Amino acid sequence: MVLNIKQKSIFNLQSIHQSVSVRFNYEIFFTTNLFDLKNPTLAQVITADGEKKPKKVVAIIDAGLLQYWPDLPQQLAAYTKFYAEILALAVEPMIVPGGEAAKNDRTLPQQIHKLIEAAGLCRHSYLLAIGGGAVLDLVGYAAATAHRGIRLIRIPTTVLAQNDSGIGVKNGINAFGKKNFLGTFAPPYAVINDLNFLTTLSDRDWRSGIAEAVKVALIKDARFFDFIHSSSAALVSRDIEAMQQLIYRCAQLHLEHIANSGDPFEMGSSRPLDFGHWAAHRLEHLTNYNLRHGEAVAIGIALDSTYSFLLGLLDWLEWQRILNTLLALGFTLYVPELAEQYLQLEHPRCLFRGLIEFREHLGGELTLTLLENIGQGIEVHEVDLSLYRQAISLLHDVENRLTLLIES
Amino acid sequence: MVLNIKQKSIFNLQSIHQSVSVRFNYEIFFTTNLFDLKNPTLAQVITADGEKKPKKVVAIIDAGLLQYWPDLPQQLAAYTKFYAEILALAVEPMIVPGGEAAKNDRTLPQQIHKLIEAAGLCRHSYLLAIGGGAVLDLVGYAAATAHRGIRLIRIPTTVLAQNDSGIGVKNGINAFGKKNFLGTFAPPYAVINDLNFLTTLSDRDWRSGIAEAVKVALIKDARFFDFIHSSSAALVSRDIEAMQQLIYRCAQLHLEHIANSGDPFEMGSSRPLDFGHWAAHRLEHLTNYNLRHGEAVAIGIALDSTYSFLLGLLDWLEWQRILNTLLALGFTLYVPELAEQYLQLEHPRCLFRGLIEFREHLGGELTLTLLENIGQGIEVHEVDLSLYRQAISLLHDVENRLTLLIES
Repeated sequence: MVLNIKQKSIFNLQSIHQSVSVRFNYEIFFTTNLFDLKNPTLAQVITADGEKKPKKVVAIIDAGLLQYWPDLPQQLAAYTKFYAEILALAVEPMIVPGGEAAKNDRTLPQQIHKLIEAAGLCRHSYLLAIGGGAVLDLVGYAAATAHRGIRLIRIPTTVLAQNDSGIGVKNGINAFGKKNFLGTFAPPYAVINDLNFLTTLSDRDWRSGIAEAVKVALIKDARFFDFIHSSSAALVSRDIEAMQQLIYRCAQLHLEHIANSGDPFEMGSSRPLDFGHWAAHRLEHLTNYNLRHGEAVAIGIALDSTYSFLLGLLDWLEWQRILNTLLALGFTLYVPELAEQYLQLEHPRCLFRGLIEFREHLGGELTLTLLENIGQGIEVHEVDLSLYRQAISLLHDVENRLTLLIES
Repeated sequence: MVLNIKQKSIFNLQSIHQSVSVRFNYEIFFTTNLFDLKNPTLAQVITADGEKKPKKVVAIIDAGLLQYWPDLPQQLAAYTKFYAEILALAVEPMIVPGGEAAKNDRTLPQQIHKLIEAAGLCRHSYLLAIGGGAVLDLVGYAAATAHRGIRLIRIPTTVLAQNDSGIGVKNGINAFGKKNFLGTFAPPYAVINDLNFLTTLSDRDWRSGIAEAVKVALIKDARFFDFIHSSSAALVSRDIEAMQQLIYRCAQLHLEHIANSGDPFEMGSSRPLDFGHWAAHRLEHLTNYNLRHGEAVAIGIALDSTYSFLLGLLDWLEWQRILNTLLALGFTLYVPELAEQYLQLEHPRCLFRGLIEFREHLGGELTLTLLENIGQGIEVHEVDLSLYRQAISLLHDVENRLTLLIES
């Protein structure tokens, strides 16, 4: 198509090119006993803004957390009283449901907005989000859209939130039955990881968050994968130091990717951190979120690793080593939702519809990350569904111990 | 406060500093007869993404525009048919109310989200927003929050939207009776200014948009102010070439400020482009939006210029020149909402409550831009309400021709 010069030269006006560069800085802190009066981390984060004090703070707390930490609101109140010159609770903390329920209730963002308005928060006030990844996603969305962005301090309380979802630049809620249909890119003001919260997690939630560490190790860092592999017994027996190391390295790799990938707000179609996630998102939906995100990711990793092996990308020994590590960590690699009768695209519960939704959510051309080696991802833009069906069948055999895995 | 070393050294974990840099690029095009089949601008914008075609497009159109351009949907349909290899309308265009009504109906963003979902738009699809600033703000908000951001092509159809609101990086809707309470920072994918749309504007809307040009000239560019001053007769008589020059330079100054101010997403408290706006936003609200945004901005400019003069910042001649220019353009400088009986803070309709809302919306310390000279703003952090009352009284006199303005 040739530019119509006559059109362009009306009044001789050239188009104006605009280039806007925005830098976001935030710190991820690692601590214990965050609301102990002797722990200054939170007060220091707020002090560091250099602005007039005390600052207004509104806290939103995950109801699931309160089961194990019923005194949390009182601790927070005592903390803000002790540091009254620095921060002040503008209203009572709001309690929201934990888990995916936080993201499924369309009225929750509105309730948080109402609270922000009633408390008179401004763009320099603070919203504290205390809870698992879903609650952080919900509060992040509400924070990002009020006054075009209230400062958000995330206090993630699960493994998954501390090493993955709570440290990144995204938020979101579900709508129209689609995960994260609504959301924005909005880096937090700060993140404070308190190791203590992990001690009261259920075994399922403890394990679940490890899946994202396996994922990032597989696409980025073979040595980290070795660490996870050799620490699997310690991790399963809830060794807190092994877990802290896992979280730290996982967070580091995740953050490095966001900062250095060249596309932190995902304007392209490539998203290596979503390795294993197309199937995971779909399985969460198909199981009505009975599968935890991490459990679904473990299956997604197993599936895409197996598919990588069948494609000839990944060698047999490495493939076996991945499945063995996931099994050693206690993950299940197959669920009934993967049964053969569902695997035709026409079936409304077909797993492969997840590929379509995944492409739609990322935008542009279908782009999947597969594995060439442990520690080395590779992108593909096409899929062979019959090979995927074969991969699922192999996982079924592995789960039923019909396929012998070597010790690695 | 001293850092508690014991807390920090648990497992020897240093905090991780994250720094994320994001660059947004977009082009502002100037054209006429955008949907003429011979005008390739829109098709070229979409072609330039370098991705698989045709691209899905959903259009949202300002109902106010259709009064004067009833064939617009048909033209758009013909255009997309002609350029069918490049773009395809995924659904029928959606018509939304024009003006502030677009931003006051909380169900509209949800309706647009539903349309985006039904049309199967992805992050690489396009939303076309065709209309005045309020409609662009609404559609921008819906676009920014669906899939964490659908590409938005803004087609502003008013002077105000073409030179100011439609070219920047913000969107927003009203909530809780507060202007732009909900919104995000989200640069558009492209902006296409079609001069033809301006020919059917009412005199009020034509004039209204000039206020933002006066504003940016006053704080940034004395020569541009001279141009507006000397072109006032041409502008009032609806000379399209004078208007095009005004829009172009205003857009340029506005865009330069966003790109080079160092704070495009307004994380600080300084916002010089909001010169005159604290009173303007409040007056819009107090008049139930019977005042157009630009009309309110003209009063805000007159008020803050007069206050700058009374503070001794701005000299008498320049002050007179500013008021004369606004009057020559046909702006009213006083409305009954400024009457003395409302000017005590206790009064619920007091103008000065706008200062509190303004601070809350920007966040942090109160920061107002005033004038040192024509073309030169200066920031202050305190206000003298009695001096402001005096400024309002002067404006009342000017409006009633009780104060003699010199010819300048």
